[in-house]
Amino acid sequence: MRGVLDVPDALVPVQGLIADALVRVEKIFDEHLQADLPPVDRLCAHVERYRGKMLRPILVLLGALSASPDARAAFDSGREGELLTDGLIRLAAVCEMVHMATLVHDDVLDDAQLRRRGATLNTLEGNEAAVILGDYLIAGAYHLCATIGRSDLSERIGRVSMDLCAGELLQLHHRGDLSLDGPTYFEIVRRKTGTLIGVSCELGATLVNAPPSTARALYQTGVRLGVAFQIRDDLLDLVGLEQSVGKSVRKDLEMGKLTLPLIHHLGVCDPLTRGRSLELIEHGAQGVSDSDLRELLGLLRESGSIAYAEATAAGLVEDSRRDIAALPDTPARALLDALARAVVDRAS
Amino acid sequence: MRGVLDVPDALVPVQGLIADALVRVEKIFDEHLQADLPPVDRLCAHVERYRGKMLRPILVLLGALSASPDARAAFDSGREGELLTDGLIRLAAVCEMVHMATLVHDDVLDDAQLRRRGATLNTLEGNEAAVILGDYLIAGAYHLCATIGRSDLSERIGRVSMDLCAGELLQLHHRGDLSLDGPTYFEIVRRKTGTLIGVSCELGATLVNAPPSTARALYQTGVRLGVAFQIRDDLLDLVGLEQSVGKSVRKDLEMGKLTLPLIHHLGVCDPLTRGRSLELIEHGAQGVSDSDLRELLGLLRESGSIAYAEATAAGLVEDSRRDIAALPDTPARALLDALARAVVDRAS
Repeated sequence: MRGVLDVPDALVPVQGLIADALVRVEKIFDEHLQADLPPVDRLCAHVERYRGKMLRPILVLLGALSASPDARAAFDSGREGELLTDGLIRLAAVCEMVHMATLVHDDVLDDAQLRRRGATLNTLEGNEAAVILGDYLIAGAYHLCATIGRSDLSERIGRVSMDLCAGELLQLHHRGDLSLDGPTYFEIVRRKTGTLIGVSCELGATLVNAPPSTARALYQTGVRLGVAFQIRDDLLDLVGLEQSVGKSVRKDLEMGKLTLPLIHHLGVCDPLTRGRSLELIEHGAQGVSDSDLRELLGLLRESGSIAYAEATAAGLVEDSRRDIAALPDTPARALLDALARAVVDRAS
Repeated sequence: MRGVLDVPDALVPVQGLIADALVRVEKIFDEHLQADLPPVDRLCAHVERYRGKMLRPILVLLGALSASPDARAAFDSGREGELLTDGLIRLAAVCEMVHMATLVHDDVLDDAQLRRRGATLNTLEGNEAAVILGDYLIAGAYHLCATIGRSDLSERIGRVSMDLCAGELLQLHHRGDLSLDGPTYFEIVRRKTGTLIGVSCELGATLVNAPPSTARALYQTGVRLGVAFQIRDDLLDLVGLEQSVGKSVRKDLEMGKLTLPLIHHLGVCDPLTRGRSLELIEHGAQGVSDSDLRELLGLLRESGSIAYAEATAAGLVEDSRRDIAALPDTPARALLDALARAVVDRAS
């Protein structure tokens, strides 16, 4: 949405439906965080500026619209809008709120200065305010989720948040670990990015009482998309330009985080190249110079490691599209499919 | 408990009942946080060492035992142990987990080195690990709460966590504010400490289906006890010795946080003393020297400000004991009352 997706004419109405629903999601997001304390409201207003593509809320809405047992009948009779209940809108806001909380804390951990083309909260207000505001967002997400009145949703959101933190802790544990292997990288990424995108796909379906097997399949679809998304994100951090990505780049190298292209490269290149690459990566921790980066990217291209990471992301998206194809044939399914394809095409 | 309370012989059985239940609380606390990732488990093991007086779980248990509609009958027939259901034990662990999360993040914010006579997690493992582990504990608390299957409990825990964070943000906003007034101090303390102790008293009662008015009264009781507790905590930070308090002291002065004795003192003393006191407080931000501290404490004693803070805490405890007296006459109520009295007598 938001100009991210060019959709065929047939999908314009459902895209409009989602766009209208997102306005409701934003409204409940903002209202729910309102406190009666000006210092708190001022910080929350800053977080509203972080709002991006709203991927997770869109997935919640599309999960419900594609997997509801009434989906086909609803679309056939033009009553699909009735599936977008107040509870679903809340759930969409919950997933975005959990995501925002992780962004705010991530920026503290990464000491990032830039987010969505603006200064990060930690830069403007200090790490302390960013830590507590992240906590406030998490608490807000859980509270909002509980107001839907379904403990099964709260339980899933809680469990996934635990997974997400465990993934972050695992990543932190491997910071500066130049022997990080592929399986551990995927374990980190699955937990820290995959699980939340997975439940975003799943829980909309759960709320509208889709068959549990469909909800589970949607979770897997979302996890795959999330991992593909993170691989692309890691690639952008490595090869992207700050001005087009809109947030700090080269943070992974500075933070000693090995990502997929580097892991692949170190595994396949000859010992001499490997030694030189490790040297360049170690230099990177003190800030990445342009010439070092050019050399490193050249080596990564030579070993086919950039292409490998791109192909891995594309393969995950293809897998997820196969799951999506098993859903009932509705415009919502078509839009979900278009969204999946967009994950590998994204430039920011 | 744990040697904190000297109780009359009549209360020994109910104290034993609570002690046994706390073993179950600790067990579920530890089990629930177990991940399948060694780096996560290692950090959680460290947090287990933070375990202190378990005030919040005790209040959850006593809230249920004192306010259950069957409380009198249960104690009369010796079946009070049946009130300590698995759900109640979980709820007690939830309140402790939220509390632990705030301790871990507070130590990051305060840059504290010492907690429960051991090094803090941020000191041992860095701020990043402490921030994420705090998040993991919060997520664990919400997840565990959702497994009880009552959305009303999750909603209250979520709302109170929002309040708690709002209190922390308000406190941060007033860091270094030497004109902080009494009402704002109480607003901060009510939110950041009062509300969680309040729901700890309330939710045990809610779970056993106590009348809503009783649950609300228990919430107010807990808020008052919490505020009294925090006033004592702030006093210990000011006048206590690190070795007897068991955690870093003089952090409030170093962090530019005015607490009740200082607020009272600056409001009542003559202009000359006020000027000198402000000077000493401002010095404190660069680390408090022994001679400055001695002088400041002397001035606070002269203006009756230490006594004022002690009397305020004692007054709040008296108010809360009046509410406790309105509960059915059971050994649980008597123990709750003994616990309330202990709040103002605590030395650590």
